[in-house]
Amino acid sequence: MSTAVAPDVAERLRSAQRAARQIGLLDDAAKVALLTGIADEILAQTPAIIEANAADLARGDAEGISAGLRDRLLLDAARVAALADAVRAVAELPDPVGRVLDERELANGVRLQKVAVPFGVVASIYEARPNVTVDITALALRSGNAVALRGGSAAQSTNGALIAAMRSALVAAGVDPGGIQSVDDLGRDGARALMRARGLVDVLVPRGSAQLIETVVTESTVPVIETGAGVVHIVLDESAPLEWARDIVVNAKTQRPSVCNAVETVLVVRSAADRLIPPVSDALIAAGVTIHGDAEVQQRVPAAVAATDDDWATEHMSLDLSMRVVDDLDEAIEHIRRYSTMHTESIITADDANAERFLAEVDAAVVMANASTRFTDGGEFGFGAEVGISTQKLHARGPMGLPELTSTKWLARGAGQTRA
Amino acid sequence: MSTAVAPDVAERLRSAQRAARQIGLLDDAAKVALLTGIADEILAQTPAIIEANAADLARGDAEGISAGLRDRLLLDAARVAALADAVRAVAELPDPVGRVLDERELANGVRLQKVAVPFGVVASIYEARPNVTVDITALALRSGNAVALRGGSAAQSTNGALIAAMRSALVAAGVDPGGIQSVDDLGRDGARALMRARGLVDVLVPRGSAQLIETVVTESTVPVIETGAGVVHIVLDESAPLEWARDIVVNAKTQRPSVCNAVETVLVVRSAADRLIPPVSDALIAAGVTIHGDAEVQQRVPAAVAATDDDWATEHMSLDLSMRVVDDLDEAIEHIRRYSTMHTESIITADDANAERFLAEVDAAVVMANASTRFTDGGEFGFGAEVGISTQKLHARGPMGLPELTSTKWLARGAGQTRA
Repeated sequence: MSTAVAPDVAERLRSAQRAARQIGLLDDAAKVALLTGIADEILAQTPAIIEANAADLARGDAEGISAGLRDRLLLDAARVAALADAVRAVAELPDPVGRVLDERELANGVRLQKVAVPFGVVASIYEARPNVTVDITALALRSGNAVALRGGSAAQSTNGALIAAMRSALVAAGVDPGGIQSVDDLGRDGARALMRARGLVDVLVPRGSAQLIETVVTESTVPVIETGAGVVHIVLDESAPLEWARDIVVNAKTQRPSVCNAVETVLVVRSAADRLIPPVSDALIAAGVTIHGDAEVQQRVPAAVAATDDDWATEHMSLDLSMRVVDDLDEAIEHIRRYSTMHTESIITADDANAERFLAEVDAAVVMANASTRFTDGGEFGFGAEVGISTQKLHARGPMGLPELTSTKWLARGAGQTRA
Repeated sequence: MSTAVAPDVAERLRSAQRAARQIGLLDDAAKVALLTGIADEILAQTPAIIEANAADLARGDAEGISAGLRDRLLLDAARVAALADAVRAVAELPDPVGRVLDERELANGVRLQKVAVPFGVVASIYEARPNVTVDITALALRSGNAVALRGGSAAQSTNGALIAAMRSALVAAGVDPGGIQSVDDLGRDGARALMRARGLVDVLVPRGSAQLIETVVTESTVPVIETGAGVVHIVLDESAPLEWARDIVVNAKTQRPSVCNAVETVLVVRSAADRLIPPVSDALIAAGVTIHGDAEVQQRVPAAVAATDDDWATEHMSLDLSMRVVDDLDEAIEHIRRYSTMHTESIITADDANAERFLAEVDAAVVMANASTRFTDGGEFGFGAEVGISTQKLHARGPMGLPELTSTKWLARGAGQTRA
């Protein structure tokens, strides 16, 4: 089934599969030691990592990369230390492998157990963020998996140095270094090969822009966990307390505007429009937000720009917010159905029946009443780490922790039983 | 995202989505009543169903369909009654929707619940088996989903009559009949449209031949649960008790040779070859099995035919069995890694350490010690019904019951909390 994969990539993935067998059988203590060794080695190789990073930065500067990309790419000693600390934090999480998820005994005495097992080979395609290289590797190894990486080409030298450090730690721990593979040197062909490597890659997790994720989801023949894009709504219901409405909308938009759980559209029920729109908008504007309003919003907010049809489908990722007046909760839910990316939706209301109706009827990974959409986060949920936020319905939905990097296996123990 | 879907199919799927919102909110009693109504209506429309089936049979006879296909296609009054009974059995299963799977309270007082919710629209592509039309519909509705069906064209008239009966029952129960959709009239274009309907189909479950499943898995852009193909192995370890080895191998091969959990290859550790191969083979041959053996098996079993390289990768689905002598357990596990479809693998041994090693190291949906592979079955596992047997690692692995037709949703209930 993997005949379409470039031979060199197939060979690397087979190497990852061999290593995965060993890594999958490591016990908790061995995995903790392995990750601790990786953190130590990253720290020890700080000079080499920073040197490699300087090469990426120089190439980027010559190509005129944006200030944002340059900042995400840049590693200094403090940032390298933070990478090592992140690995130590993953080491401290409970081992997700071996959990008994179901147990039953058949009438004939066969004992069944459903246990959590590693996937095998976890692949990731992501952008030029060196921290993802380390994060995904730590999460994959902690959950007993090998990993195959394809990072953004702008970070290729940095990723190479990080991977070299991590592989050294595997060797030092007596673990097959084939457990960490990269296809960065193969450019887009490497990404394409990962997407087509049925039978060699067990699950592929894209991380990055909506466009990257859409490409991976559409082109992959391996199982994908879709993460990310968030056109997130907050509904201000007729009974929404002003203080909650104002605090939550401002928090959800401005606390970190560039992330997927930031709100993009506020829908205000008409009967609350005069009461809520002016003070909520004032607070937003004071925080530097540009409001893209429909006509009814613009009547009440002189500073609002006119919302276009595109605004409703846009993940601004900036201090821009779309705002619309709706007839009632029905129309709010209908708007969400049309434009939601099924990430996070929240209602602000003092009416319990409306809150419960919203929670029941809205289809998203996380549906909230009276809380900031910024809480959709593995750290906030208490998972200790986050693989990503799944916006698909298969396997995992919402923030994913280590357990979401495991599959299951049924074990059956008998004494000669046959089926009647 | 669904622009590639033929407009008429997209319209049917949007109709299914609308109905899914209603079906997803039905409580347990309403779903039981709905399924009871479907069973009653199938029974009441027995004459129309048999008439439609006669048309399919006549067309099939004219086209010279095989006896096996004709038998799977044929419905008489008793078989229609069995279809209705199968729906009643699904009605009796516990409601999988609304289960609280996780619950946590954040330090700031936000209460989180992870609850089981319907997928929305479940699609299935399958072969000319009218019972699948009824089974999948009952399972999907019982778990709160709408369903979109594409059955084999040889059963098109029968499926039409069954779907008409089931939709009548929806209307009688006040449920939107758009909850059952078929694209049978569109031939292969219908199947292709289902596979590409991202955003309209939440999960696609293919049921049928290995080739059908491979096509669906490779061509789909919607999430797929891969079911089925089973190149199933039994290893006879050095210490395998003869009686267990003989009974389990004969049971696993002959009790129902045409199904995916039947054994296809027996691997015998060399040190047990003289002791086990002759009596196990005698019992198999007495049961009508043709043994495809390697040279060492042929030495011991004069009636064995020579195994070809293809035999090891073949799901015979007949009274044929591949048999090979291996050096030791290492080689047995290596053979399984190479040829397994990760469905079910079993070892027969009196050595607990070898049993546990096999259970830990073999990567398959179900790994057994000292039990017949025929136990890999939703009914045998006590699920009460079976959606299929997943051979993938994402979302569900092994026999799937009703809970596997649900996704999850996080509910967050707060009182104005914002993120610090």
